[in-house]
Amino acid sequence: MIAVVPFKYRNPKTRLAKILSLDERKKLAMTMLRDVLSALSGVDRVTVVVPDDESVKACSFINAKFENAEVVMDDRNLDDLVNYFIDSHGEVAVVMADLPLLNEKILSKFFETDGDVVIAPGRKGGTNMLLVRNRMFRVSYHYGSFMKHLAIAKSRKLKVVVFDSFYSSIDIDDESDILELLIHGEGKESYKFLSSIMSVDCSSKDPYIKRRT
Amino acid sequence: MIAVVPFKYRNPKTRLAKILSLDERKKLAMTMLRDVLSALSGVDRVTVVVPDDESVKACSFINAKFENAEVVMDDRNLDDLVNYFIDSHGEVAVVMADLPLLNEKILSKFFETDGDVVIAPGRKGGTNMLLVRNRMFRVSYHYGSFMKHLAIAKSRKLKVVVFDSFYSSIDIDDESDILELLIHGEGKESYKFLSSIMSVDCSSKDPYIKRRT
Repeated sequence: MIAVVPFKYRNPKTRLAKILSLDERKKLAMTMLRDVLSALSGVDRVTVVVPDDESVKACSFINAKFENAEVVMDDRNLDDLVNYFIDSHGEVAVVMADLPLLNEKILSKFFETDGDVVIAPGRKGGTNMLLVRNRMFRVSYHYGSFMKHLAIAKSRKLKVVVFDSFYSSIDIDDESDILELLIHGEGKESYKFLSSIMSVDCSSKDPYIKRRT
Repeated sequence: MIAVVPFKYRNPKTRLAKILSLDERKKLAMTMLRDVLSALSGVDRVTVVVPDDESVKACSFINAKFENAEVVMDDRNLDDLVNYFIDSHGEVAVVMADLPLLNEKILSKFFETDGDVVIAPGRKGGTNMLLVRNRMFRVSYHYGSFMKHLAIAKSRKLKVVVFDSFYSSIDIDDESDILELLIHGEGKESYKFLSSIMSVDCSSKDPYIKRRT
């Protein structure tokens, strides 16, 4: 089994620019990538795909720290990239780099789930993890990809299964996701970093995040 | 095993008042309750606890439709109510009435999960489902209940396990949750109702909900 992890180090996580500096967003992106690679340590082969030299450089630690992982530069758009991996490997998992709450147990269950196509949804119609076991399948990652992937699988008569996990549903995109990481991320690299600069305030009905002073 | 489902019919789901009328919010609350009770059909005994006569009346259909369910009026606050059930039964599950994406399979897994206390989190530090098997445990449902329940369990040396489910994490509270129900709820009563008045628009980067015209 090969797992593909698309990753971008240049100006990452722009929706967090209101609460985190560029340096902090880069640090967050990098620690989340480490968390995802740790969760993937039981997989035969992990390919981190990056679009530019800056990202390659930032990922230079990977070969030494994660034996099963390699970094490949490829600037194709996500759809073309993943379709290429489906064509060339037949069986491939696509795991987003901003899923810090993943762990090995969740991934084992995910990889053991039957189906030509297995989708772990994120909120807002996202596809956070995808497992493809049939070359007939094509991806379409934008504008409600979860619904698109269900429709594509059905139109090609492929068996599609939805993987039910709260932890894999949390992709770190906006402030509300940061709250989830601070609540559920204990033990993660990204949690260690984030909790050094932010904390959760539970003094009102809905908990919220605030900068440490 | 007894499952407690707290339910309120009077002015429910106030955070949805901007997009749904009072009648629509009542209809939504009622269809979600039906979805939850259907998911709980494998449980020995389900007690729907309501705070007032209006809610008792609205729930009069339950006895006929769900053999394992009864309606009880009790206007204590949620904490006192659940602590009372823990004291009197020793083993009790608390399932919120606004979790329409539940199904029997998720609930079987939930009930089979080991631990003195099993918590199925919602976003924003919520406790969407709770399974208590030890009378030493107390609940505290407000202001970040997930963290509070972890802390209470630890302070009393009880084994606490987090139940990892995307579907049980979706409690219908605000507009963003309505989107999740419209994306993932096919086959549910609440989906049938909601999709008759609202739809999902996928023409921009993030899908959004809109009223049908």
